[in-house]
Amino acid sequence: KKGKRGIVENDLFKQDWRSRKKNQIFQYVVLKWALVLLIGLLTGLVGFFNNLAVENIAGFKLVLTGDLMLQKRYFTAFLAYGGCNLVLGATAAALCAYIAPAAAGSGIPEVKAYLNGVDAYSILAPSTLFVKIFGSILGVSGGFVLGKEGPMVHTGACIANLLGQGGSRKYHLTWNWLKYFKNDRDRRDLITCGAAAGVAAAFRAPVGGVLFALEEAASWWRSALLWRTFFTTAVVAVVLRALIEFCRKGKCGLFGQGGLIMFDLSSNVPSYGTQDLIAIIILGVIGGVFGGLFNFLLDRILRVYSIINERGAPSKILLTITISIITSACSYGLPWLAACSPCPVGSMEECPTIGRSGNFKSFQCPPGHYNGLASLFFNTNDDAIRNLFSRGTENEFHMSSLFVFFIAIYCLGLVTYGIAVPSGLFIPVILAGATYGRIVGTLLGPMSDIDPGLFALLGAASFLGGTMRMTVSVCVILLELTNELHMLPLVMLVLLISKTIADCFNKGVYDQIVVMKGLPFMEAHAEPYMRHLVASDVVSGPLISFSGVEKVGNIVHALRITGHNGFPVVDEPPVSEAPELVGLVLRSHVLVLLSGRNFMKEKVKTSGSFVLRRFGAFDFAKPGSGKGMKIEDLDFTEEEMEMYVDLHPITNTSPYTVVETMSLAKAAVLFRALGLRHLLVVPKTPGRFPIVGILTRHDLMPEHIHGLFPNLRKSH
Amino acid sequence: KKGKRGIVENDLFKQDWRSRKKNQIFQYVVLKWALVLLIGLLTGLVGFFNNLAVENIAGFKLVLTGDLMLQKRYFTAFLAYGGCNLVLGATAAALCAYIAPAAAGSGIPEVKAYLNGVDAYSILAPSTLFVKIFGSILGVSGGFVLGKEGPMVHTGACIANLLGQGGSRKYHLTWNWLKYFKNDRDRRDLITCGAAAGVAAAFRAPVGGVLFALEEAASWWRSALLWRTFFTTAVVAVVLRALIEFCRKGKCGLFGQGGLIMFDLSSNVPSYGTQDLIAIIILGVIGGVFGGLFNFLLDRILRVYSIINERGAPSKILLTITISIITSACSYGLPWLAACSPCPVGSMEECPTIGRSGNFKSFQCPPGHYNGLASLFFNTNDDAIRNLFSRGTENEFHMSSLFVFFIAIYCLGLVTYGIAVPSGLFIPVILAGATYGRIVGTLLGPMSDIDPGLFALLGAASFLGGTMRMTVSVCVILLELTNELHMLPLVMLVLLISKTIADCFNKGVYDQIVVMKGLPFMEAHAEPYMRHLVASDVVSGPLISFSGVEKVGNIVHALRITGHNGFPVVDEPPVSEAPELVGLVLRSHVLVLLSGRNFMKEKVKTSGSFVLRRFGAFDFAKPGSGKGMKIEDLDFTEEEMEMYVDLHPITNTSPYTVVETMSLAKAAVLFRALGLRHLLVVPKTPGRFPIVGILTRHDLMPEHIHGLFPNLRKSH
Repeated sequence: KKGKRGIVENDLFKQDWRSRKKNQIFQYVVLKWALVLLIGLLTGLVGFFNNLAVENIAGFKLVLTGDLMLQKRYFTAFLAYGGCNLVLGATAAALCAYIAPAAAGSGIPEVKAYLNGVDAYSILAPSTLFVKIFGSILGVSGGFVLGKEGPMVHTGACIANLLGQGGSRKYHLTWNWLKYFKNDRDRRDLITCGAAAGVAAAFRAPVGGVLFALEEAASWWRSALLWRTFFTTAVVAVVLRALIEFCRKGKCGLFGQGGLIMFDLSSNVPSYGTQDLIAIIILGVIGGVFGGLFNFLLDRILRVYSIINERGAPSKILLTITISIITSACSYGLPWLAACSPCPVGSMEECPTIGRSGNFKSFQCPPGHYNGLASLFFNTNDDAIRNLFSRGTENEFHMSSLFVFFIAIYCLGLVTYGIAVPSGLFIPVILAGATYGRIVGTLLGPMSDIDPGLFALLGAASFLGGTMRMTVSVCVILLELTNELHMLPLVMLVLLISKTIADCFNKGVYDQIVVMKGLPFMEAHAEPYMRHLVASDVVSGPLISFSGVEKVGNIVHALRITGHNGFPVVDEPPVSEAPELVGLVLRSHVLVLLSGRNFMKEKVKTSGSFVLRRFGAFDFAKPGSGKGMKIEDLDFTEEEMEMYVDLHPITNTSPYTVVETMSLAKAAVLFRALGLRHLLVVPKTPGRFPIVGILTRHDLMPEHIHGLFPNLRKSH
Repeated sequence: KKGKRGIVENDLFKQDWRSRKKNQIFQYVVLKWALVLLIGLLTGLVGFFNNLAVENIAGFKLVLTGDLMLQKRYFTAFLAYGGCNLVLGATAAALCAYIAPAAAGSGIPEVKAYLNGVDAYSILAPSTLFVKIFGSILGVSGGFVLGKEGPMVHTGACIANLLGQGGSRKYHLTWNWLKYFKNDRDRRDLITCGAAAGVAAAFRAPVGGVLFALEEAASWWRSALLWRTFFTTAVVAVVLRALIEFCRKGKCGLFGQGGLIMFDLSSNVPSYGTQDLIAIIILGVIGGVFGGLFNFLLDRILRVYSIINERGAPSKILLTITISIITSACSYGLPWLAACSPCPVGSMEECPTIGRSGNFKSFQCPPGHYNGLASLFFNTNDDAIRNLFSRGTENEFHMSSLFVFFIAIYCLGLVTYGIAVPSGLFIPVILAGATYGRIVGTLLGPMSDIDPGLFALLGAASFLGGTMRMTVSVCVILLELTNELHMLPLVMLVLLISKTIADCFNKGVYDQIVVMKGLPFMEAHAEPYMRHLVASDVVSGPLISFSGVEKVGNIVHALRITGHNGFPVVDEPPVSEAPELVGLVLRSHVLVLLSGRNFMKEKVKTSGSFVLRRFGAFDFAKPGSGKGMKIEDLDFTEEEMEMYVDLHPITNTSPYTVVETMSLAKAAVLFRALGLRHLLVVPKTPGRFPIVGILTRHDLMPEHIHGLFPNLRKSH
């Protein structure tokens, strides 16, 4: 049996580092690990910086307002409070609107789409990173009902992208040795690590970060990736731990004294009976309904907002200012509705608290009294959650206060997400869910053995299950946030129920936003109607293919009139005996080859050696976001246009193919499972032109298929 | 553009429930969830029963021996202790050797291979399940250095298989409505859930179970599976929680009073400085070395054992008895080496303890004294781990005791795994690792702020990282076992280091056992040398294909002389104009079709309608383990052998194909990513026979390829 050794993909591929010597592979591996380390380090630092800045800015604002209130200058206090919020919010919106519109919102849907293979440029650009970091700080400090975790995920992904593509050419920050990672897979790996690091930094939940990346962010998963994300989040955890230890010595201004666990609830074993279980099941069902409703309403509001936001930067800023004023009015105005309560006797905590955080806010109350609603509204979101989760404080919040807060937060969360500010959804959902849970706990009161603080945890779980539809990652994140392992079985139960209920109504919130943004996201499974079609049914447009040795003019023409990124290469007589499929060339590689201008007068096959002399593998590497060569950049003389160029050296001779009669469902599974960008469709019967067409991501989108076959029964 | 509607896979497929009406799909979905629920329920019950039985049997044994020792009848005590162990061990070995040899060992490698697509019959059979449950109880009660978690994973998988295939025909336990799941994917899904439930039940770690299934067990992962395993383990958690609550009332004999958390360490925030970090890094490095060494030695010992075990059941039992005696001698004999220590003053715990568990075993010591080494040896493994992890007991164990225990457990763990008893590796590794960590902690003593109990936790993490090479799942399992969230960053750090170090030496222990057992496990990545080969290079054996309408005699002959499970079907003139590939038929489907005996005199294509009349889709469903039809079961007359049968209705017309010149690396990736069993290789140039060969799992194994191309540079 003979062994055909040698090049089976293409010459370029052979030049690539992968096929090189051992020490180069070693270099690559070390570099990749070093990068992952760096991603963890930087994301950890940014996460800590964000936290530190927010605590200090929001703290300053709250202390200032508190002081004015102590002097009974209530209107001035409102102006100071609302004014701070307005300035912070408007600055964030201006940053977003003028510098990086892609930085608005959570960023998780975009990262998810990128990891699914959608190259939406600019979503991971350096300017987005900059705005995301500072916009998020300003937005959270500005008192909006939004969180920092979505933006942190996006920030981590941006950091990973920036490092992975070797810096930014636009800002003249480049490291040549980082050009190693110019292919899709390595990029996706690094960005997955970045996303995991983001969650780890936002929630101080390293394992939760890994699981988030796995469950929500990534579309392809390998066990190697698990190991790599684990490494990244471990680095984040170590960095955060060290910095928090440093701050414990009081060098960080108003930064809190808390440890690595954000809302530590750990305590004795809670006990619960059958009646509690029934209450919890009902809590899960209602939480699922509220979650589904949240997604439904958010979708409507985002559609309205997108019309406003499309009018340009001033409208965006105006919308943000409006929401900022409404939020300030709610936070400052609504607590006036609540009556003052006397401080509990023998409480461990200071009461009333005048500083920035604390369970018992003084607000307008006389000494020895506190305002429960102000403890929730007139606080940072993190502190409000901490108060809701707090145990042994059964009677701290009046039922009416909780109701008012719940309605206000649910609505503010809905109207805040779409504004032009980096905004996470986790915190608003946890906040609303915790209030809901606390309401249930207070209602049940002495009928239940479970503390209202634990009910708040279960309520938060039910809302998270109902909107995000994540399971394991939410479970672990809540565990890492609260250090309450005893509640794990109940949290799992609630998540199960609320996700199941909400799944009856609509999709998860991030999936919904991906669809709304029109990103061509490929689902892991094939739709049932695809079983009734074959691959050739959905091939679109006239086929454009190149000869193995093609006239330059034809290539330039084809590149100009189409936007295709891949072209089949077919050898025809006299180069081969009969028309024969050679493989696939990528637009970007053709452009690089053309720029070399090594053309021939005759249509003959070359040895291809000049390509290897003229170019390095790096020249053909996938460029960073949006900075590849364009056909418009190249000019050719009339004479050159009549010459020939040999495409064989840059042709991938092992493209994946399917026969035209292949079930479309199976072709789609192949496409998705292997993460392809092009799938060649070949004829079944001999004697025809050796290629029928190319399938791309867009050809497999439901909209495209339903457009071609309007009568196709829609799947449910 | 015309739309070719209708059947694109094959007629049978259309008959399958998937393509049927909505209510049938609904039925299937409900059934699948009900099954998953049942798997969780049963595994939870079995896990609890196992635990209960072990606690009572081992407790009885220890109490009996303790009483005899109190009466100073030391030799009788040894006979009682060693005798109990011997009887328990020999019974377990006899069960294994005579009823189900597949039940010996951990079972995790087998489950892993099954989920990779290796159909090793009998590993999930009902007899295996029976022996696994009772053998594990006997083995653990018998004082061996082995755990119950591997066997629980196997048990969960067996339960899932039994339910999924609708009971067992052999034992006349069948439910017809459960025949829905007779395909590979549904089976694998259920068995993955079973494996997750096993870990959840063994460690009472529901989230750890999901992650174990994801990280170690499953080869293909979909987000739907995450959700399903999460559901299963949530059920397990709820079941366990309820049963433990029930036992708290004292109705379960010697069953402990502990809650859902097995080794609860939760406490105040531990603080640590730079010198601790350095100590922990060194601990991780050494732990990695010990872990790698463990794998290396285990491999050697298993090879020796396999020679002994191959001699038949009596040798197996003899080997088990030998190990049982050695273990009893160590557990009973070695504590005599240790001096008695006075009980600590002001300890919260009873000292000395005479009953079954407790930190301070009396053993041979006078009143007011305890024997530290006996607290470790003369206890169940779970209790020994609990003692090692215990905090605030710095001086409980002498350095010499710890050393003796470490060496004994490390060696006993190595020699115990290969005996014919269901045996998990987690517990021995945790035990050895915890002792190692405790030694380090005691050595550092006052130099470190960290309690030796926490060092024991870190030591266990380092050994687990060094042998199992899991990361996230070990991390979460340890977290769920100990409820010590504060140590998470350190545990992650230690895991990182020890895994990295051990990966330099060899593979993870389960992977190693899979290789040693000769199971054809497919790795997720292609080996580098595959880039130098093309698909047609490794196609083995002469190609056997059928005509679309084939003579019965030819089919019977082909089925008799080969063991192939798939055959290409090619239409030839006069059925088609030119030879044309129709698709692929499976051996099992052909056998079912032949058994219908609807043969024709002429070689003509039929409408195929008789197949649909004669058979239901269930008739063609994949049979349960090893109970499919065989060609030897069918007899045909001379006349029938000369007749024809139409294979078109049962041919899969959409098989995955690759061109013969496709890079073997890419073909292997396709094969693995889609979980194929057959991959058709088609010719590149027209005019040849339309199929070159079939690639199966075995053609892609490194051994096969290196056999064909001995000069191929081996990969590293």
